[in-house]
Amino acid sequence: MDARYTNQANALIWASQAKLGRWNRVELAVVQARAELGLVTFAQSDEIHRRLAGHVFDLAEWQRIDALIKHDYNAFLQMCKALLPAELQHLFHQDMTSYDGEEPAFALALQESCKLVDEFYLTLQTTLVDLARRYRYSIMMGRTHGQWAELQTFGKRCLTWLKTLRVAVEMYERVKSSVLWVSKISGAVGNYGALPPELETQALAILGLTPYYGATQIVPRLLYAQLAQSLCQIVEAIGQIAADIRKDGQSGIKLCEEPFQPTQTGSSIMPQKRNNIGSEQLEGMMRMAQDFSSMLDRCTVTDRERSIEQSSVERVAWPDLFHVTLHSLKTIVRILTGLKVYPDNMLREVQASCGTYAAGAAQNQLKQMLAGFGVGDKVGYQIIQLAAFNLFEPTPQDVLVRQLPPSSMTVADDILQQSWAPHRQLSLQDYVPRAELRVSSDLQVGVEQVEQWNGLLRQVFAEPSNRDRWNNVFRPSNLLANESVLYREILGE
Amino acid sequence: MDARYTNQANALIWASQAKLGRWNRVELAVVQARAELGLVTFAQSDEIHRRLAGHVFDLAEWQRIDALIKHDYNAFLQMCKALLPAELQHLFHQDMTSYDGEEPAFALALQESCKLVDEFYLTLQTTLVDLARRYRYSIMMGRTHGQWAELQTFGKRCLTWLKTLRVAVEMYERVKSSVLWVSKISGAVGNYGALPPELETQALAILGLTPYYGATQIVPRLLYAQLAQSLCQIVEAIGQIAADIRKDGQSGIKLCEEPFQPTQTGSSIMPQKRNNIGSEQLEGMMRMAQDFSSMLDRCTVTDRERSIEQSSVERVAWPDLFHVTLHSLKTIVRILTGLKVYPDNMLREVQASCGTYAAGAAQNQLKQMLAGFGVGDKVGYQIIQLAAFNLFEPTPQDVLVRQLPPSSMTVADDILQQSWAPHRQLSLQDYVPRAELRVSSDLQVGVEQVEQWNGLLRQVFAEPSNRDRWNNVFRPSNLLANESVLYREILGE
Amino acid sequence: MDARYTNQANALIWASQAKLGRWNRVELAVVQARAELGLVTFAQSDEIHRRLAGHVFDLAEWQRIDALIKHDYNAFLQMCKALLPAELQHLFHQDMTSYDGEEPAFALALQESCKLVDEFYLTLQTTLVDLARRYRYSIMMGRTHGQWAELQTFGKRCLTWLKTLRVAVEMYERVKSSVLWVSKISGAVGNYGALPPELETQALAILGLTPYYGATQIVPRLLYAQLAQSLCQIVEAIGQIAADIRKDGQSGIKLCEEPFQPTQTGSSIMPQKRNNIGSEQLEGMMRMAQDFSSMLDRCTVTDRERSIEQSSVERVAWPDLFHVTLHSLKTIVRILTGLKVYPDNMLREVQASCGTYAAGAAQNQLKQMLAGFGVGDKVGYQIIQLAAFNLFEPTPQDVLVRQLPPSSMTVADDILQQSWAPHRQLSLQDYVPRAELRVSSDLQVGVEQVEQWNGLLRQVFAEPSNRDRWNNVFRPSNLLANESVLYREILGE
Amino acid sequence: MDARYTNQANALIWASQAKLGRWNRVELAVVQARAELGLVTFAQSDEIHRRLAGHVFDLAEWQRIDALIKHDYNAFLQMCKALLPAELQHLFHQDMTSYDGEEPAFALALQESCKLVDEFYLTLQTTLVDLARRYRYSIMMGRTHGQWAELQTFGKRCLTWLKTLRVAVEMYERVKSSVLWVSKISGAVGNYGALPPELETQALAILGLTPYYGATQIVPRLLYAQLAQSLCQIVEAIGQIAADIRKDGQSGIKLCEEPFQPTQTGSSIMPQKRNNIGSEQLEGMMRMAQDFSSMLDRCTVTDRERSIEQSSVERVAWPDLFHVTLHSLKTIVRILTGLKVYPDNMLREVQASCGTYAAGAAQNQLKQMLAGFGVGDKVGYQIIQLAAFNLFEPTPQDVLVRQLPPSSMTVADDILQQSWAPHRQLSLQDYVPRAELRVSSDLQVGVEQVEQWNGLLRQVFAEPSNRDRWNNVFRPSNLLANESVLYREILGE
Repeated sequence: MDARYTNQANALIWASQAKLGRWNRVELAVVQARAELGLVTFAQSDEIHRRLAGHVFDLAEWQRIDALIKHDYNAFLQMCKALLPAELQHLFHQDMTSYDGEEPAFALALQESCKLVDEFYLTLQTTLVDLARRYRYSIMMGRTHGQWAELQTFGKRCLTWLKTLRVAVEMYERVKSSVLWVSKISGAVGNYGALPPELETQALAILGLTPYYGATQIVPRLLYAQLAQSLCQIVEAIGQIAADIRKDGQSGIKLCEEPFQPTQTGSSIMPQKRNNIGSEQLEGMMRMAQDFSSMLDRCTVTDRERSIEQSSVERVAWPDLFHVTLHSLKTIVRILTGLKVYPDNMLREVQASCGTYAAGAAQNQLKQMLAGFGVGDKVGYQIIQLAAFNLFEPTPQDVLVRQLPPSSMTVADDILQQSWAPHRQLSLQDYVPRAELRVSSDLQVGVEQVEQWNGLLRQVFAEPSNRDRWNNVFRPSNLLANESVLYREILGE
Repeated sequence: MDARYTNQANALIWASQAKLGRWNRVELAVVQARAELGLVTFAQSDEIHRRLAGHVFDLAEWQRIDALIKHDYNAFLQMCKALLPAELQHLFHQDMTSYDGEEPAFALALQESCKLVDEFYLTLQTTLVDLARRYRYSIMMGRTHGQWAELQTFGKRCLTWLKTLRVAVEMYERVKSSVLWVSKISGAVGNYGALPPELETQALAILGLTPYYGATQIVPRLLYAQLAQSLCQIVEAIGQIAADIRKDGQSGIKLCEEPFQPTQTGSSIMPQKRNNIGSEQLEGMMRMAQDFSSMLDRCTVTDRERSIEQSSVERVAWPDLFHVTLHSLKTIVRILTGLKVYPDNMLREVQASCGTYAAGAAQNQLKQMLAGFGVGDKVGYQIIQLAAFNLFEPTPQDVLVRQLPPSSMTVADDILQQSWAPHRQLSLQDYVPRAELRVSSDLQVGVEQVEQWNGLLRQVFAEPSNRDRWNNVFRPSNLLANESVLYREILGE
Repeated sequence: MDARYTNQANALIWASQAKLGRWNRVELAVVQARAELGLVTFAQSDEIHRRLAGHVFDLAEWQRIDALIKHDYNAFLQMCKALLPAELQHLFHQDMTSYDGEEPAFALALQESCKLVDEFYLTLQTTLVDLARRYRYSIMMGRTHGQWAELQTFGKRCLTWLKTLRVAVEMYERVKSSVLWVSKISGAVGNYGALPPELETQALAILGLTPYYGATQIVPRLLYAQLAQSLCQIVEAIGQIAADIRKDGQSGIKLCEEPFQPTQTGSSIMPQKRNNIGSEQLEGMMRMAQDFSSMLDRCTVTDRERSIEQSSVERVAWPDLFHVTLHSLKTIVRILTGLKVYPDNMLREVQASCGTYAAGAAQNQLKQMLAGFGVGDKVGYQIIQLAAFNLFEPTPQDVLVRQLPPSSMTVADDILQQSWAPHRQLSLQDYVPRAELRVSSDLQVGVEQVEQWNGLLRQVFAEPSNRDRWNNVFRPSNLLANESVLYREILGE
Repeated sequence: MDARYTNQANALIWASQAKLGRWNRVELAVVQARAELGLVTFAQSDEIHRRLAGHVFDLAEWQRIDALIKHDYNAFLQMCKALLPAELQHLFHQDMTSYDGEEPAFALALQESCKLVDEFYLTLQTTLVDLARRYRYSIMMGRTHGQWAELQTFGKRCLTWLKTLRVAVEMYERVKSSVLWVSKISGAVGNYGALPPELETQALAILGLTPYYGATQIVPRLLYAQLAQSLCQIVEAIGQIAADIRKDGQSGIKLCEEPFQPTQTGSSIMPQKRNNIGSEQLEGMMRMAQDFSSMLDRCTVTDRERSIEQSSVERVAWPDLFHVTLHSLKTIVRILTGLKVYPDNMLREVQASCGTYAAGAAQNQLKQMLAGFGVGDKVGYQIIQLAAFNLFEPTPQDVLVRQLPPSSMTVADDILQQSWAPHRQLSLQDYVPRAELRVSSDLQVGVEQVEQWNGLLRQVFAEPSNRDRWNNVFRPSNLLANESVLYREILGE
């Protein structure tokens, strides 16, 4: 893993020193279990512990032996035995195959890395809860298909992020509970050979584990693939947050923005730039998480009682998947903690939507108001659609340049001298009651139809109570009343 | 999906007719819920049900409208409303966005397909249990790295398959319980707009669902990705079984074989062939399951309150993933039900291993017997290693052709006329006590060392009780005594 | 493949009827080649052709036999032979293995589907060239990291799309030339057995193919994986275009938009919506293409002289990958042909950037103008950065709501009544010469520093020629002069 | 990348020191190009070169600045400029965006790593050619579906490996020629801004590169994905070789085996083991290569003129993909160079096939010999099929244990005491002429039919010339005559 995405604590967990330490812990647990079962004396077990417990192995020596005998675990055993008196040597790793040591040690390593994950995601949840509360009443345009849709609050947006994260985390917690606490010490083909099943139970218990019954030489990788997938899902949940921040932080009307350090530089050529590069990077992290998880998933089938093609993949993909997960967690916490949120621009955008933020409610209202007029159910929809299209019609200046785009750079120079200020449209709220709908080239509605509709509108809005009801529709407090349910159900408020 | 891998019942679930039927069910549930909440009268609701419940939609008409308005759900709504009197039309799909109908209907479709899966995997489990019991004492060579390892039974092999399947199935069951029963009817951006939250609760309850709080326009796809992954894991568990059958069914000493119909032909050119093509096909199924699952997993991030890029993928990948899963289940059940198991050949292979099936136990025994001789702990290992290498040494005839492979086709003709019968080696059981170890070119052990070891062996085996202990080591009943634990823990026997 | 993404012509290519037809063509080519090589008489060959050439097979009968003998190719052969007089039967498929027929037929199928692709992508290229020409002088903001970067034209954007497509297409063409025209008729393990190599050469030549020397029973799938990857790359190149259109077509300042039919409806609840759903769908297509390609790529290794796990995957993934590719091509051609481009809004956005579109050039200019003042090289950068940050500073109204977001829905109602019109900033072009830079909370620059810079600016812009040089910097014709190189190099203009 | 799969030379290429060195080379090339184009004086250029060419950067300092300004390239520039006199600073990186330096440097890095690949794969090809020649006449069973198929030589197997590798390598070479030699120095959005296009041409030429016209801020990643795919294909070609070696090196009749060092240990518990762990590891390498390539492939779409999500992926996946590729090449060369090939066991297996190695030819021969007897074309096939099934029929001892598998461990002990020697069947060659075919429970052929066939066989083989023709069929020189074509076409011999 590239140094900048490496979590130091995680790197240590997967480094050789720690690995040898875990192997040693497992072997010693087996020795101790033997003593507890009366298979060796406590004196023997204690002496072995005295010589090996907490031993710091000489990595260079270990690598030297490994290069010679081509078996890292046997190299480790050789070093251990050299530290024991001759008469105790055969009690160490007795009747075991190397994976009787490797497998429990692997489970321990996963536990340690998961602990790092656990710390982070709690912080992330808290951060999201804080944001959801702070911006509970900061209204903004919801967007579907990139288009302005209905009104919502930024707080509600944060709740959806939180809930998606919880979907991932709940699965992660469930997977951990079934994956991290099992292992095997059941011999070369998993049927215990000379190893008593009670020894497995006892030794694993010392390590805080329980037996997985039905192993081959190894625990089936299907189990660990579940953990990889759930880590990946955490990164994907973060990926959703990051994707939204990137989009809301685009130039134009910026709704929020990653924190930008005063000492940070933008582009080497474009001094004005403040890029949401943290969020962009998180998309890269997500892709890596997906493919590291895929690698592990492709290792679920092995050759009968096991072959070792999964080993190299696991050596690479597990530490790296954890690095990616941890870096993602750290990055999103940093971004969200310092997130610059712009409720002013959210309001700007709501107003820029010309009241279409309430178009759904408006058409419902209109349908009700038109109910007595004997027109079909869909007229309300059609009127609002036409009104919305009218509101966003291009100006004559616009139409001209659409029909005849600049034909040279000189023309481009000139046209840029003209003013292209945003044209201020009316809001739907004001426009519809005026009953001045116009034919739109984008809709198949004829002049007579439009005139009929204008007639209807005139009748409807002649009634003052209808005016009030209509205006009410556009109130955030009206439109968003039900968001409180989400706060109640998700945050218990 | 290619016709030969298509499950008809599943195909019907995902076909348009059934989809429209589910949309209709959801819309009617909302109408009914409105009545129950007093938002419409029961008379209104009943009339709408009377006209629409169980309606069979004209698919051609639906496609015609869809082609015109480019919105399949709106096309459906148009057809529904045409069946209602004008005054009831506005009560249908009132205040809803199309995905308030699509999402619950999607959950229902997943439920239906999962039900098909559920039926099959129970049969599969029973079949595996039967095999495990029938072959509980059929001994065979365990294999690690493709090499003969320790002894096991075929029944135990079946237990490991069963347990791996259970790992997948337990996850699948857990995922189903959290995924299949939630959905949303909370409007265009998931904050209920004009839709009362109670209406969602009530309508979903009618459909057997509960609300997912925190949706955008859709339920986050992270949730469904979990289901896809767990289906994929079932196929992977089957893939492990199939991979083992393929390998054990190779030409040579066949341990088991897929059923082969008397009417079946082998190869068009090779009449002798009986290929395990079902198991091979299951590997193909696994690859498809992995990538259909991957497709769905890559759709977990959407654009703010949703965009629709996931829709096309889901239309393809969900039915196809279910087809692949169901075809895999059906095929493995067919294979396992008719599986030809050859305990005779298993025994042949055990004997062919020249007693190395007990090499681990033998070296332990030897270490113990050597304990009083003041030699290091690893001598036992080294002697057995050397003995095993001796046993598998090439004959002089072998050595010759290894050094000088045939130099022409004529030589090849001639050499094939010679007899290349398997050379019958001694068993480790007989060889070691003879104390006739020889230097091996494959091991770095000198003549003097070997002679010393032979001396030790002579001393050890001069003792008759050591002979008995030694011979005992090679007994299956001795080596496999602990397999009963697996039967107890996994089958409760 | 779901019906709405299915290309009918492609579906026919991969349907059973066409497959049997291709098998028949291959078998007949071999018979004819035998005649040409004098292995059978022309009379025999002619008679076989007379009876079988162009024969339309009874699919139901074929499936019936296949179900019985579990071998689709043998079932086909059985049907063929039944049509031949007894004395000619042994000349049909003589000495061949089924894959001697399947492999050339597979190559022919790929050729046919590729021909469909070929037609489309030429149209796509033409469409892109037309767009690049039409909008050659339509200036717009380039965006990096979602942020306004330097000025460019929409025509240039189209050129980058075109060139990316060409990268994919050139690979596709190269792959086709090495993949589509080879195959094998070399027997069960690819060493010709009873099949003369000349027969392979001759028969393949009749089909327009040449031998792949070094086959096993099959041509290595590595070769076909290359084709799958290059089809996927075409879809990815389209995916880039679609992604850009989606983003430029977002609500706000819309730069372009998919065509929207007058009869099309938007959302069922939001009448104002015009969603770029075609572009969104293309992202789904891309994900499918990537995973169909992945499926095929995971089938590159087979078991020694072949096993058949790749067959099921190929039956599914090849037709579907072509469907996805063809649907993507068709969709993007439809979108681009009808693309609504808004040069007016592009200008609006350029102006909204407050002159930062030229910030890079401006800082260069400023550096040169400051060259004589003995200030470091980076002062120019820093001044422009500060100026840009000043320009986009929030208004006091903004600051207030940022510090204190609305605390209730009532406050939200009220605040939305205020005007949140876009605040009109000066342009960098006008702002910098005024020498009124202010300290920014986002940058670590002190008051004295800013004052010094303002002093410098006053001196610089006191010089009228500097004013002119400065103003020149902001001219599109100045900034974009070099784009013509791209037109020359890419379009040859 | 885990240390054991790391290629040191490759690691250096992607390390920071080398990266800064390449950035420096690119920047200096631009300065030099400016001088050549007369944009700066040669004196200026020379002075800049004098100060920076070959400069070894202080990595700690670089990281310190990067942490402060969050921009690694700007940090590098800052260090460079500090080494230049004030008046030359603005000439360094003038008018460039950081990716104008990064992109050419990236191309150079790819070139360097590819050079490492190039060295290896030539060795690999030579090794394969040597093996193909040495074992040109070493006959062995071809295997399809894991079953014995037709005869071939081990030399021919090596040729298929070689040819598959060539498929990958030819694509790799083609991709290199179009990918490695292009880049861009065309500014922030790829339209040259203040950068003269001639400068790009000139500067790239100094670096050995040519312009990619149509870049955005970056060269489209589609191009590089092609390189990743072709590296992956090399690993997949190696994966095929490794898969075959693993299978042929299984316990039973071992056809070949990885080299095993005399100092190497097998299993910690099973001293007899010699595992083909190198080949197994190569399968792991292949999975990693596929997913590293997938990661890069998922980065082909970027946000308009670019965003940076691909950067983190590339930092990880490119060095690691090269490590995996290089480790795969190194490992397979080691394995193949020391490969232990056992022609004796290949002969053993050919004989064990009981003559079915020639079953295809035999049935053809039989068909011809039966031609005059007025029996249908398929009788030859059926007789050989029945004969083959007869030959492999179980013994009565076998049948017994198949019907009644051992019912307890004691029974298992006993049954293992029986002899389970391979039963020596006749060969097809001897069996068929005896005309003693028997009904088989595996085929639907009745007694009368079998008797009729035996009658036919008696008649046929009464003719001595038929005997000779029949025996000829089983000669390797007869069956494999055409393999020479492969040597001619592939090795030019």
